[in-house]
Amino acid sequence: MSEQEQEPLTIQPAQAALLTPYLPPPPPASSPSHSTNPKKIHVTLTYAQSLDSSLALAPGLRTVLSGAQSKAMTHFLRSRHAAILVGAGTAVADDPGLNSRLSSGSGAGSQPRPVVLDPRARWAVHEGSKVIRHARDGKGLAPFVLVDQDRFGMELGDASGVDEGRRRVLESVGGRYIPLKARGPNGRFEWVDVLAVLEREGLGSVMIEGGGEVINSLLAPPGNGLVDSVIVTIAPTWLGRGGVVVSPPRMRGEEGAHATPVRLTDVSCCPFGEDVVLCGRILR
Amino acid sequence: MSEQEQEPLTIQPAQAALLTPYLPPPPPASSPSHSTNPKKIHVTLTYAQSLDSSLALAPGLRTVLSGAQSKAMTHFLRSRHAAILVGAGTAVADDPGLNSRLSSGSGAGSQPRPVVLDPRARWAVHEGSKVIRHARDGKGLAPFVLVDQDRFGMELGDASGVDEGRRRVLESVGGRYIPLKARGPNGRFEWVDVLAVLEREGLGSVMIEGGGEVINSLLAPPGNGLVDSVIVTIAPTWLGRGGVVVSPPRMRGEEGAHATPVRLTDVSCCPFGEDVVLCGRILR
Ligand SMILES: NC(=O)c1ccc[n+]([C@@H]2O[C@H](COP(=O)([O-])OP(=O)(O)OC[C@H]3O[C@@H](n4cnc5c(N)ncnc54)[C@H](OP(=O)(O)O)[C@@H]3O)[C@@H](O)[C@H]2O)c1
Ligand SMILES: NC(=O)c1ccc[n+]([C@@H]2O[C@H](COP(=O)([O-])OP(=O)(O)OC[C@H]3O[C@@H](n4cnc5c(N)ncnc54)[C@H](OP(=O)(O)O)[C@@H]3O)[C@@H](O)[C@H]2O)c1
Repeated sequence: MSEQEQEPLTIQPAQAALLTPYLPPPPPASSPSHSTNPKKIHVTLTYAQSLDSSLALAPGLRTVLSGAQSKAMTHFLRSRHAAILVGAGTAVADDPGLNSRLSSGSGAGSQPRPVVLDPRARWAVHEGSKVIRHARDGKGLAPFVLVDQDRFGMELGDASGVDEGRRRVLESVGGRYIPLKARGPNGRFEWVDVLAVLEREGLGSVMIEGGGEVINSLLAPPGNGLVDSVIVTIAPTWLGRGGVVVSPPRMRGEEGAHATPVRLTDVSCCPFGEDVVLCGRILR
Repeated sequence: MSEQEQEPLTIQPAQAALLTPYLPPPPPASSPSHSTNPKKIHVTLTYAQSLDSSLALAPGLRTVLSGAQSKAMTHFLRSRHAAILVGAGTAVADDPGLNSRLSSGSGAGSQPRPVVLDPRARWAVHEGSKVIRHARDGKGLAPFVLVDQDRFGMELGDASGVDEGRRRVLESVGGRYIPLKARGPNGRFEWVDVLAVLEREGLGSVMIEGGGEVINSLLAPPGNGLVDSVIVTIAPTWLGRGGVVVSPPRMRGEEGAHATPVRLTDVSCCPFGEDVVLCGRILR
């Protein structure tokens, strides 16, 4: 493990205070409240982009975009959510740690449950994967990997179709493959189904970190209707054409006119080092 | 003229104070100082974009992106620069006013000189063009239009090759066509030549407002070397794929590796209504 991975991160109280209105409420001390809201899970969409809306120079090319302060912010956010979700593309490309390294001085919360959307089970998770090492070392939780139920001929709750070795690695630290019906177009899960799985697992909040495809699908209908808040770190740089770009598919309204674009409200912004963090709520 | 065009705009002192470090110094009261800086003109690049880096839904489709407060900021910036420059694409698509409507209470400065890069003289300027009406009404200055010297068979200072009617309109309010050698690729002016023309005309500062092509060429070498500061208004919305996008051409370093992207330093940010204004200086 590199030096950098071990170094604890800190966040200033004023910065934390700015973020708090956009975060899920702390879990209730007593039994869960009986909300009338059909979607109970709080969804925070959060990512770091360049001014020209790139997440990375190219798919699979890990690109350091944000500085130390906004990195600490990401770890603060992770400590404030029950789950952290990424797509298979990010799991494969980045070998992400998906834990929180916030130092306890900064009011470190619990670790989030890593969740990977991997319908084809293409993420080659192994003993050396960062997230497995973190789970083994007590520095993070073991991942849940959502796979396509039909593709693997699995019965509900049984992931027998997935590669035996990967399954053993995952289960050895307390993780598992969770089969889910891919009801959307192109073999995709519907977001409402993904969130239902998380709720069923007792996870009351999720921060969705990337990558490009996952974010874009949550910034267009119907996904955007499920997002509670958006926290974007903007690194003051232009990566140039050809990167992994956040820009949702263009919607068409009646008679082919441009539909109203997705917009944020209750916007606030704050410098985090040289980066700018912009928070908002999706305008309904 | 619409109501909206006449309404004077105001900016709060705190907002003005945030912007001032990125603006050209006020013109000297006495004779111009003898700077040793070979480029004397201050260049501010400024534009409004969506979170996904679009300037407009489509070329020629005027898109209201920013709110009232950042609109006032734009007019404040215009009052603080000797010139305002746009490309022919913007002049043709938007019929822009290119003046400052800042109310005198907000410390309105002088009007900027509109400059249009129009090598092929394709902007059909006429009596009804907003910029001509403003000049006639004393609400703005008459435009200078830079055209390709070779294309029009013009001698220096003589624009006889350009359509007679357009020339008369321009000259009737004190504007003119200025021939310039297009030494760059694709019949483009070199930015250093454009700035030299402005300096020759006694203009000590220019704010460059768009559109997409102009901005992208200034965010890549060698153009970026001439930019002093960048002021970007970010509207909290995603216009989606297919718009007029700010994203410079990708540079290649040695052996085809990605060259270091252009970056800002001395970054600050400030909310202007629901928009976020991000200011910085190009890192050298
Ligand atoms: N800057 C940041 O904040 C940040 C954060 C995270 C990642 N990234 C970068 O983003 C890049 C990866 O982005 P990406 O767009 O290639 O990949 P991605 O969004 O991480 O993953 C896309 C894949 O996830 C699966 N997936 C996504 N949505 C799904 C759904 N609704 N149902 C079922 N499966 C779904 C699909 O897998 P299948 O193709 O197998 O069906 C899809 O191809 C990497 O370069 C990474 O570094 C940057
Ligand atoms: N949101 C904002 O802040 C903002 C601001 C301004 C404009 N816009 C939008 O941007 C869009 C227009 O952008 P655009 O990319 O189409 O056009 P543009 O950048 O305004 O103009 C491009 C044209 O200007 C000329 N030009 C540019 N650079 C030149 C150079 N170095 N030398 C000589 N000529 C040069 C060329 O004319 P020729 O092709 O004739 O050679 C070129 O095609 C419009 O939709 C407008 O609404 C948005």
